[in-house]
Amino acid sequence: MAAPVDCDLQGAAPRQAPGAPEGPARVLCDWGSSRLRAFLMLGGTLAERREGPGIGQLAQDSPAEALARVLAPWRTQQRLERIVLCGMAGSRNGLAEVPYVRAPATAAQWLAGAAAVRCGEDLLTLVPGIQAQNFRDVADVMRGEETQIFGALSLEPSLASGRQMMVLPGTHSKWVEVRDGRIARLQTYFTGELFDLLSTRSSLLRVGAAPEPDEDAFDVGLRNATRFDLAANLFEVRSAQLIEARSAGWARSLLSGLLIGAEVQSMLALRGAAGAPLTLIGDASLTVRYLRALISYGTDAHRLDGDRCVLAGLHAAAEFQES
Amino acid sequence: MAAPVDCDLQGAAPRQAPGAPEGPARVLCDWGSSRLRAFLMLGGTLAERREGPGIGQLAQDSPAEALARVLAPWRTQQRLERIVLCGMAGSRNGLAEVPYVRAPATAAQWLAGAAAVRCGEDLLTLVPGIQAQNFRDVADVMRGEETQIFGALSLEPSLASGRQMMVLPGTHSKWVEVRDGRIARLQTYFTGELFDLLSTRSSLLRVGAAPEPDEDAFDVGLRNATRFDLAANLFEVRSAQLIEARSAGWARSLLSGLLIGAEVQSMLALRGAAGAPLTLIGDASLTVRYLRALISYGTDAHRLDGDRCVLAGLHAAAEFQES
Repeated sequence: MAAPVDCDLQGAAPRQAPGAPEGPARVLCDWGSSRLRAFLMLGGTLAERREGPGIGQLAQDSPAEALARVLAPWRTQQRLERIVLCGMAGSRNGLAEVPYVRAPATAAQWLAGAAAVRCGEDLLTLVPGIQAQNFRDVADVMRGEETQIFGALSLEPSLASGRQMMVLPGTHSKWVEVRDGRIARLQTYFTGELFDLLSTRSSLLRVGAAPEPDEDAFDVGLRNATRFDLAANLFEVRSAQLIEARSAGWARSLLSGLLIGAEVQSMLALRGAAGAPLTLIGDASLTVRYLRALISYGTDAHRLDGDRCVLAGLHAAAEFQES
Repeated sequence: MAAPVDCDLQGAAPRQAPGAPEGPARVLCDWGSSRLRAFLMLGGTLAERREGPGIGQLAQDSPAEALARVLAPWRTQQRLERIVLCGMAGSRNGLAEVPYVRAPATAAQWLAGAAAVRCGEDLLTLVPGIQAQNFRDVADVMRGEETQIFGALSLEPSLASGRQMMVLPGTHSKWVEVRDGRIARLQTYFTGELFDLLSTRSSLLRVGAAPEPDEDAFDVGLRNATRFDLAANLFEVRSAQLIEARSAGWARSLLSGLLIGAEVQSMLALRGAAGAPLTLIGDASLTVRYLRALISYGTDAHRLDGDRCVLAGLHAAAEFQES
């Protein structure tokens, strides 16, 4: 790990409360574009969690100020021994830019790329993202998902042997090939952001508050989805309303099925991606939709909770720093 | 043509100026979602043009009021004998909803579906859109492009024989198969709107004012484009900036090449779509980009100016009403 650099803490960070009870405490943070999730760990168990704004949502505050604000209540009671962060915290717009570690990378190679950043009185550990070639041999990147993946490998050591495909649905879905515990290849799909843009800002749909998902429409989307000709297939979302008089809510779930279906069919068809056991990592609401797609195309997947995986990955990072 | 219906003219339309010089005058209008273009024709020649808001942009005004406002200056000088409109003017949100004519349709079958709409003292002619199956046998629709296509056929009668493919790039690009002068099939691509959403509202790009197109980047996009896996390929626009340190302007032209390339490759590959002579209809700025894509994939196309075609189509509609 390189020598500590200073983060840009313009505001006054709350100092340790003088009379606060002593006690070793770790803070593990997953700080993405859209939210910060901080976990207070006492003696290896999760004591409390707090949320804050994502790196992409900071308006007035610097990242250091935003972090200080979220951690302040814990400081009055605990001395925060170690603070470890993954995700966009280590990006150009975060606390400090941590270079990507290049694949293939084991957990140890990944953690060797972590950066120590002094932030007020704290010494933060920022874990790096990973850069890997995608399945078309173009460079691709992730920040945060690698922590969930290495966390999954520590939770389920059987995943660290042979060829495995980890699937992390989200704003930018990641399909990550792991070979014998090494992150090898990485393919990003723009699916989640595309769904948000198309369902809220396009002429395809005019819906008010997000309606309840319609499983029937989602399944029609999965059936009609192909990895081909997405810009043509999208227009069927509009035709369904104009010609078949479907509701906008129905069409929204159709769009979800078309986009998730196109992503899943695309990955299942890519040379070199097929054949490996699949593990879905994330929130249940999203992994269940991907599982439905996978099953409808004749395959299956193991599911792991995203929070559990990220905590395990950040825990491993904290242990690595102390070893 | 059905009996006239009344349009919803809530405001006061300017009346014929009592002392205005007499003289037969036609107004031909192409009224789409994003703009109204009105052409004053005197004795068969274009005398003047005026622009107004698109059907999708009307805030305070009803469509009838917006039309009255645009035509008012002409009324003080001319008696407007006939007003013919195509495009979203005939949609649910326009002056009156005119049902789609179903393909296959000749120009005469299309014009038989026109509607007469009384609007204040005017009797307007609203031409219909066309509904046709797409190349995946799903219903697809257009409003306005059919007028350009039948206009092209009247300008160049050779296009009315055999199998022809008309390509109308735009917000919603249309590829239209014409067989012996009949509109037969229709495929919409969401390309233009997708480009607008992705280049102005997504995490792929952060550009201020639209930069000059970069031909090199556009060509890289054309080379990397495929009809497969669009949601994966899009992420290369971000990687180009993050990893290859390309400018946002460069990446914007890359995105344009990827999207136009995906559309063109998709249509060239679709069963039943390939092999017909191609005619590009539209503004030169856009048809030239599509031509560049077609040529880079080993094919070629004839180009026609969109305004010339729409005027010819509206002129044919006016003649049809008077015959």
